[in-house]
Amino acid sequence: MTPQELKSLVRTIPDFPVKGIQFRDITTLIGNGPGFAATVDWLATRVKDSGAQAIAGMEARGFIFGAAVAAQSALPFLPVRKSGKLPCDTIGVDYALEYGSDRLEMDPTSVTAGQRVAMVDDLLATGGTACATAQLLRQAGAVVSHAFFVIDLPDLGGAVKLRECDVEVAALMEFDGD
Amino acid sequence: MTPQELKSLVRTIPDFPVKGIQFRDITTLIGNGPGFAATVDWLATRVKDSGAQAIAGMEARGFIFGAAVAAQSALPFLPVRKSGKLPCDTIGVDYALEYGSDRLEMDPTSVTAGQRVAMVDDLLATGGTACATAQLLRQAGAVVSHAFFVIDLPDLGGAVKLRECDVEVAALMEFDGD
Repeated sequence: MTPQELKSLVRTIPDFPVKGIQFRDITTLIGNGPGFAATVDWLATRVKDSGAQAIAGMEARGFIFGAAVAAQSALPFLPVRKSGKLPCDTIGVDYALEYGSDRLEMDPTSVTAGQRVAMVDDLLATGGTACATAQLLRQAGAVVSHAFFVIDLPDLGGAVKLRECDVEVAALMEFDGD
Repeated sequence: MTPQELKSLVRTIPDFPVKGIQFRDITTLIGNGPGFAATVDWLATRVKDSGAQAIAGMEARGFIFGAAVAAQSALPFLPVRKSGKLPCDTIGVDYALEYGSDRLEMDPTSVTAGQRVAMVDDLLATGGTACATAQLLRQAGAVVSHAFFVIDLPDLGGAVKLRECDVEVAALMEFDGD
């Protein structure tokens, strides 16, 4: 499948979660077996080219793509979870949302010093979650140089922000504002 | 890797989430690249033998294994989510927890009538979540005959309960009470 065909599998839901937002919904992409497999292939190829030794995925939609890429690549998968979900000792990072803040946590023993970890997520918007995740992974000793997304919304500036965090970005498809 | 080697990759955390519970933690299993890949291979083989045409995974740890199996098998992945997470119209099911209740939701248009859907999750305990998920998938028109787990805790009776719900069960490994 071409990137254009994969893009056509993404459903747009108007006015979600608030009026004026066009929500790009990957449910319909992953609900297409060959489309989901082709998306994971695309991500796995970029991960391989990046030299990553492990994949980090952010709860919950990042688990869908990140874990699939990790298993296909026989690489470790590092779940970056919402606060209070992991049963082990954790390290965490707080980051700002549009309203309020949120916290991400991980098991610091799941990373070895100097291990090259790539981030995989479904969608790049402002880049706040991915930047916080990079900071958290680095705190655990990882080298974080790449992040791979299914969708980039370039109008929201996430790729610029991530490059400021010393993370290179690639995305399978983009949606411009309309 | 043998099932015994894979079992040795699961970490046991005592007294989580409450005193007296031995929590079986898959973070260390998925944190081992070859171990994660072998686990997904085991699940994907069972899914193929079952004749399933799609995979349903329950938020959030079920996404890790279910999505990996679906992508490897080029089958649709149907995320069964916690309440309020899906951007589309949903159907839902309430189910009892030890204290209180919870709700699972899915996109009813993601299943076609008569489609054979297998459930994949990390751990089978009492079977309450999986039974509720089977009920929800059937409400959407799916035929649900199999569920595949990484871990079964047979002392908690989940496999018996699922068979009462007309769902056949297989698990890669078991942990007995101690």
